Amino acid sequence: MIPSFPAAPLIDDIVDRALIEDLAGGDLTTDATVAPDRDAHATFVARSDLIVCGLPIARRVFERLDGSVRSTVRLAEGALAHKGTALLEVHGRARTLLAGERVALNLVQRMSGVATITKRYVDAIPSRARTRVVDTRKTTPGLRVLERYAVRCGGGHNHRDMLGSAVLIKDNHLVAAGGVRHAIDRARAHAPHTSRIECEVENLAQLAEALDAGADALLLDNMDDALVAEAVRLVRSRPGGDRIFLEASGGITLERVAALAAAGVDVISVGALTHSAPSADVALDLTV
Amino acid sequence: MIPSFPAAPLIDDIVDRALIEDLAGGDLTTDATVAPDRDAHATFVARSDLIVCGLPIARRVFERLDGSVRSTVRLAEGALAHKGTALLEVHGRARTLLAGERVALNLVQRMSGVATITKRYVDAIPSRARTRVVDTRKTTPGLRVLERYAVRCGGGHNHRDMLGSAVLIKDNHLVAAGGVRHAIDRARAHAPHTSRIECEVENLAQLAEALDAGADALLLDNMDDALVAEAVRLVRSRPGGDRIFLEASGGITLERVAALAAAGVDVISVGALTHSAPSADVALDLTV
Amino acid sequence: MIPSFPAAPLIDDIVDRALIEDLAGGDLTTDATVAPDRDAHATFVARSDLIVCGLPIARRVFERLDGSVRSTVRLAEGALAHKGTALLEVHGRARTLLAGERVALNLVQRMSGVATITKRYVDAIPSRARTRVVDTRKTTPGLRVLERYAVRCGGGHNHRDMLGSAVLIKDNHLVAAGGVRHAIDRARAHAPHTSRIECEVENLAQLAEALDAGADALLLDNMDDALVAEAVRLVRSRPGGDRIFLEASGGITLERVAALAAAGVDVISVGALTHSAPSADVALDLTV
Amino acid sequence: MIPSFPAAPLIDDIVDRALIEDLAGGDLTTDATVAPDRDAHATFVARSDLIVCGLPIARRVFERLDGSVRSTVRLAEGALAHKGTALLEVHGRARTLLAGERVALNLVQRMSGVATITKRYVDAIPSRARTRVVDTRKTTPGLRVLERYAVRCGGGHNHRDMLGSAVLIKDNHLVAAGGVRHAIDRARAHAPHTSRIECEVENLAQLAEALDAGADALLLDNMDDALVAEAVRLVRSRPGGDRIFLEASGGITLERVAALAAAGVDVISVGALTHSAPSADVALDLTV
Amino acid sequence: MIPSFPAAPLIDDIVDRALIEDLAGGDLTTDATVAPDRDAHATFVARSDLIVCGLPIARRVFERLDGSVRSTVRLAEGALAHKGTALLEVHGRARTLLAGERVALNLVQRMSGVATITKRYVDAIPSRARTRVVDTRKTTPGLRVLERYAVRCGGGHNHRDMLGSAVLIKDNHLVAAGGVRHAIDRARAHAPHTSRIECEVENLAQLAEALDAGADALLLDNMDDALVAEAVRLVRSRPGGDRIFLEASGGITLERVAALAAAGVDVISVGALTHSAPSADVALDLTV
Amino acid sequence: MIPSFPAAPLIDDIVDRALIEDLAGGDLTTDATVAPDRDAHATFVARSDLIVCGLPIARRVFERLDGSVRSTVRLAEGALAHKGTALLEVHGRARTLLAGERVALNLVQRMSGVATITKRYVDAIPSRARTRVVDTRKTTPGLRVLERYAVRCGGGHNHRDMLGSAVLIKDNHLVAAGGVRHAIDRARAHAPHTSRIECEVENLAQLAEALDAGADALLLDNMDDALVAEAVRLVRSRPGGDRIFLEASGGITLERVAALAAAGVDVISVGALTHSAPSADVALDLTV
Repeated sequence: MIPSFPAAPLIDDIVDRALIEDLAGGDLTTDATVAPDRDAHATFVARSDLIVCGLPIARRVFERLDGSVRSTVRLAEGALAHKGTALLEVHGRARTLLAGERVALNLVQRMSGVATITKRYVDAIPSRARTRVVDTRKTTPGLRVLERYAVRCGGGHNHRDMLGSAVLIKDNHLVAAGGVRHAIDRARAHAPHTSRIECEVENLAQLAEALDAGADALLLDNMDDALVAEAVRLVRSRPGGDRIFLEASGGITLERVAALAAAGVDVISVGALTHSAPSADVALDLTV
Repeated sequence: MIPSFPAAPLIDDIVDRALIEDLAGGDLTTDATVAPDRDAHATFVARSDLIVCGLPIARRVFERLDGSVRSTVRLAEGALAHKGTALLEVHGRARTLLAGERVALNLVQRMSGVATITKRYVDAIPSRARTRVVDTRKTTPGLRVLERYAVRCGGGHNHRDMLGSAVLIKDNHLVAAGGVRHAIDRARAHAPHTSRIECEVENLAQLAEALDAGADALLLDNMDDALVAEAVRLVRSRPGGDRIFLEASGGITLERVAALAAAGVDVISVGALTHSAPSADVALDLTV
Repeated sequence: MIPSFPAAPLIDDIVDRALIEDLAGGDLTTDATVAPDRDAHATFVARSDLIVCGLPIARRVFERLDGSVRSTVRLAEGALAHKGTALLEVHGRARTLLAGERVALNLVQRMSGVATITKRYVDAIPSRARTRVVDTRKTTPGLRVLERYAVRCGGGHNHRDMLGSAVLIKDNHLVAAGGVRHAIDRARAHAPHTSRIECEVENLAQLAEALDAGADALLLDNMDDALVAEAVRLVRSRPGGDRIFLEASGGITLERVAALAAAGVDVISVGALTHSAPSADVALDLTV
Repeated sequence: MIPSFPAAPLIDDIVDRALIEDLAGGDLTTDATVAPDRDAHATFVARSDLIVCGLPIARRVFERLDGSVRSTVRLAEGALAHKGTALLEVHGRARTLLAGERVALNLVQRMSGVATITKRYVDAIPSRARTRVVDTRKTTPGLRVLERYAVRCGGGHNHRDMLGSAVLIKDNHLVAAGGVRHAIDRARAHAPHTSRIECEVENLAQLAEALDAGADALLLDNMDDALVAEAVRLVRSRPGGDRIFLEASGGITLERVAALAAAGVDVISVGALTHSAPSADVALDLTV
Repeated sequence: MIPSFPAAPLIDDIVDRALIEDLAGGDLTTDATVAPDRDAHATFVARSDLIVCGLPIARRVFERLDGSVRSTVRLAEGALAHKGTALLEVHGRARTLLAGERVALNLVQRMSGVATITKRYVDAIPSRARTRVVDTRKTTPGLRVLERYAVRCGGGHNHRDMLGSAVLIKDNHLVAAGGVRHAIDRARAHAPHTSRIECEVENLAQLAEALDAGADALLLDNMDDALVAEAVRLVRSRPGGDRIFLEASGGITLERVAALAAAGVDVISVGALTHSAPSADVALDLTV
Repeated sequence: MIPSFPAAPLIDDIVDRALIEDLAGGDLTTDATVAPDRDAHATFVARSDLIVCGLPIARRVFERLDGSVRSTVRLAEGALAHKGTALLEVHGRARTLLAGERVALNLVQRMSGVATITKRYVDAIPSRARTRVVDTRKTTPGLRVLERYAVRCGGGHNHRDMLGSAVLIKDNHLVAAGGVRHAIDRARAHAPHTSRIECEVENLAQLAEALDAGADALLLDNMDDALVAEAVRLVRSRPGGDRIFLEASGGITLERVAALAAAGVDVISVGALTHSAPSADVALDLTV
């Protein structure tokens, strides 16, 4: 199902800030060189193969500058665009198109970059496996809402949105809380009933302790493929072990994804989807 | 000279937004598992070699959450940190350290990532050359001020800050303006006298036209090394050609930097410094 | 465990807006009648029995106006204050105390009001029962973070924080989605693995359908006590039925709480905790 | 005369904040269960008798999410709606209606709640009396503009809007200022000529002192009905006493209103209109 | 009595916006030319005679940039400073002083400009007269709170703060409302009892009509001195006419003030205090 | 070329803040006296000769209040309007026109005031001279973007927009940096290549030093006409001196402009364009 684009107040806030960041002092070049009544046509073109993401926010950039701009989306969000494909066409005053070009591209390139790398990870999952590729909270400050959407466009799933959405007991919590069982008990007693209780474990001893304490999900942190496989077997062999969600995380690379999925984890979380995605190559071609 | 950290109102705005993005619903896990009066000590540690950047904003993250936190910076901004080096130590309530951990890391990892890749480009410039490595406006929406600072920490220079800071006539302006000479004339007539007039050129014919029109700087766009070298020779051989700033841009890779510098360009602009810098690997270790 | 007070950026935003709402035009009366160098002492006093909540934000109101104000909290958040008890003492310039009085009281009265009514519901749960009293999303726009905290101070628990935190399939979703099973299947396929899947049911047929579809939690909507009891029995008698969370909601009154808890529901959600809590009676007494 | 709805920038700010509060993480349930192209029809229905208030802001909630939504108001602001009456109909994408449902209801229920309780107080004024029922500054932080509007919709009047709008010398001012006469003299000397000078009095001695000092209005604080009646007689019997505004405040209940009006006060101010109004019961019914 | 400085949230908002307006791209010159550890001393000096206003906000500008700055105010707000007098001294890092210089000066110069011109009008009132000089709503958008404060520092009084603070029926209201009596009746029926009812009149016929309708105050608009004097006589000769506030407005010049005061108006309102006050000449001298 | 109006997000922010500043408490007078369904027509009329500026923002004020308002601009931005000329006509609900009147006028009067005084300076430049009249950073905090636009409408040019746009080494920088040559060298080494290096000089010795150090532009500060003329001669007589930009600043009056232009400076910067421009006289006439 096509994910909903983030709500307008969230988008407008990001767009307005980005425009102010670039245009607080006006656009010297455009104002000097382009007549105010000159119309033009802008085409966003993929300059390499990519997964399309962010076209609605690109349109919004231009509409925020000038309500009379007209635009047509050529490809659905999440679609694969081959190099050279036109993604979006925008028609309006040349000054508007030039003033908004960089902001619109910066957004589309980042979002498509996240979607594209996500798709690569998702495609590495063997077709019979039901393993999910999910994001983390390692997102760009201020842009989490866009990056999580981009992960969905790339075929990935989202992890919890923020620290208030779900419980995930990590190593540093264990340091401060004093042990796995204690932490899980406290979490179950305090957290909303809507949240599963997930606990990070680094070895099989911690894994057993967390299971005994009744964790609903386990994050297998920084384990190699063999250890992950053993962990999965251990969990699944326990009564009710089928209902435990198993997440592999830490040191994930594209190469490991197939093995991890084959091992039977439910979720592979990849910080790099958002913290290190290279920008997708998109250009804006102007004609008059 | 050590660059000034961006002004506090700019920083606080970014920090507050990032904290709200992660903490609007509170921190379920920490609240449930960690006692409110428990103190702890956090150490930011480099997990790979990197150029340090962003420690002042990491401190600010924790101070914004709790004014009584105490912190010590272990390395200067822009310094090289080897894997395993402690960068910053923060002491305070464990709840505060856990609640701010991810936001602080997200900022430091991104900023150090930009500084580190910038340093790699800067180090690729031969030692005798005076060529600058500079950023572009291809920055993360909302974080330009941080990323430009990170480029400076990495030894790079900044290009113009925004569209209102200086004139740069690009290909799309030429489409809308109708020719190089016309555009440069208009720019000179309208732009502030504090701004040089830079014009993008894609071939030697455009280059000659821009020089004849009196451009102060030329952006040599998407030229290969040989063409760049020829362009430099042509410009420098003209009377007054020594005073023309020459910028190479488009398709820049680390491998090309030495050749471009040797060719004699003044500036190499690299979008990848900000749009595709991988996150630097920094961890927060907690002890109680 | 004492709940953490919401993060400072969230609090400051609320405090600043409230102060601007009341002080954008200055304080005519205080400026005219009170000398600028006059000091005074303010005591917040409970004028009826109440559960204390919001004193940290009351202090923040005065500190935002004048950093030199000094204050002492007399009662812990969540404590029972008998009529006449001093809750908070603030010392500083009389002008500051008078200018901030109403804003501070408005916040403390509302938050203590929510905590007090919550405590009343919590106290109605029989002591052996483990049933939770929880809030809903029927909170005051802009103040959800404060009201959820107040519910915790009153001994209640929170439901999900926002629409992005967890899945709760309600009647209107069923209308648009076309059936319980379909909706639950879609939710399981799309939602983060950290979220349980809760589904609202209005009768035993829907209940059976939701259980068959694998819901993790059921919201028993607008059922009378007898029907709730039967629903609980039905669920618990199924294999694995002990692990299903059962939430009673709709038309909850204080009088019904004991019966619902006795029936064995895990959660009773009460919109009135936040949408209709009467203000707690707190006064500010000034002395010079 | 129908009161103007608050100015759009004020409304949009409240709406956007409320939407972000609920939708910062998206709408998991709706996105998972409802197809993006599914249209639906929402009807706001009164579930008990109430005074309608806030329908324009409910429309605005949906329009902010999706400009293509169409809506029809079925009842005028301030009208009496009987249980079961349709108040507002909204047509658009089902996802939009579901995402905005709670925010729209929270606003309408609160505003209608204030209007409804206000109307009850206003209706308790005998028909020949010209006594006003007015609000206080005991409003919800951040929502004063909506609650004052709701009071007007309920047939009440507003007191001063903020501390900078008019002078009201209260008990704590008297403590800090040193006496009624001094305070009134200072207020007259300093306050804008557009503001009347009102002074709170707790007994007949203070009342006399305030009259002698030339107060334009008196707030009779926490007096019982008999004392209020005597206060009114004393004031009206003095030369010019007809022009003194008399406000009864403190401990006002619905039962006392008729007696206070009969006693001849001009204004009865009731904090409970805004600080303790129960939410009006309004539901949103969805059809496809 | 010294007026209170506007509340911190109002001030911080103005200061932060002004700093961001000037520093969003950093301070190129200072960063390049001044060492980060260089300390310096800044003195604000009056370069012409002026009424001091705004020093607290100037301090705040520097404190916002760097909490370690130390400053000393040399003259009280509202004091007369002769040319060459030191007003404020600030000690801290040279980079901070240079980065904040222009913003601080822009604020102090504008506020002192308003205070200085106000004082000139106030001084033109004959010493026995009790006529007030007041501002209008013709203030700088976004800075009303500062300009109203500056008027008070200059010895003037404020008119109503905003459209919601008090009733002033102007010519355009009369056009839309249909006559003086009708408008005054409606205003009395609807406006808060704390607000006097003021009506603008342009001639003696309107004046009589407004008096008959019971206006509390009259704005004598664009009348020459003789007509004003006659208007005053007419009003004062009526029973109760002593209690009517008379405001002269429109076309007020410094030369007319004495005559208008002598004529007996209570209030002279002068738009030029805020819309056309020349900037006061203040310099910042730096020493190291 | 007609300058672009500042980007919508910048404008909307200013308009919304101004409207909230005036309308946070509603519009008492209009609400009381004008029926909600009454339509009216407003005409903005010049009451003295002026250069028109700001009509698009005036329209935006009314549109923000009510999207159904219709308006027609009668004169282009930057045009000369003779006394009595209609500038803008707005048709809509009378309540909307009255509520927005003052905010719209405050903006238009200020912007037209800046444009008008700028035009006066520009007209004082002899017709053959190419000397520019430019603004400074002595703008109204929060409104710089409008005032710079107004300067362009008046025929002037802009100086650098903010501290991050270009280098201008001023006297206080020289104090902290230790000498002209050192400062210019540092600036050249650090500033973006897009920025010319301008240095303030107070006498001919500094001027020579700055030229020797390679400054691109000189600000001749507080020199009398004769000294300016000599400075120009000195500079122009040096090799390459034709390419040095010369800016006269400090103590500029309308009377001096012709002499300074005749002396051959390129730029005359005038702080008074923005810090002391008297408001232009514009009225709003309402008809029904």
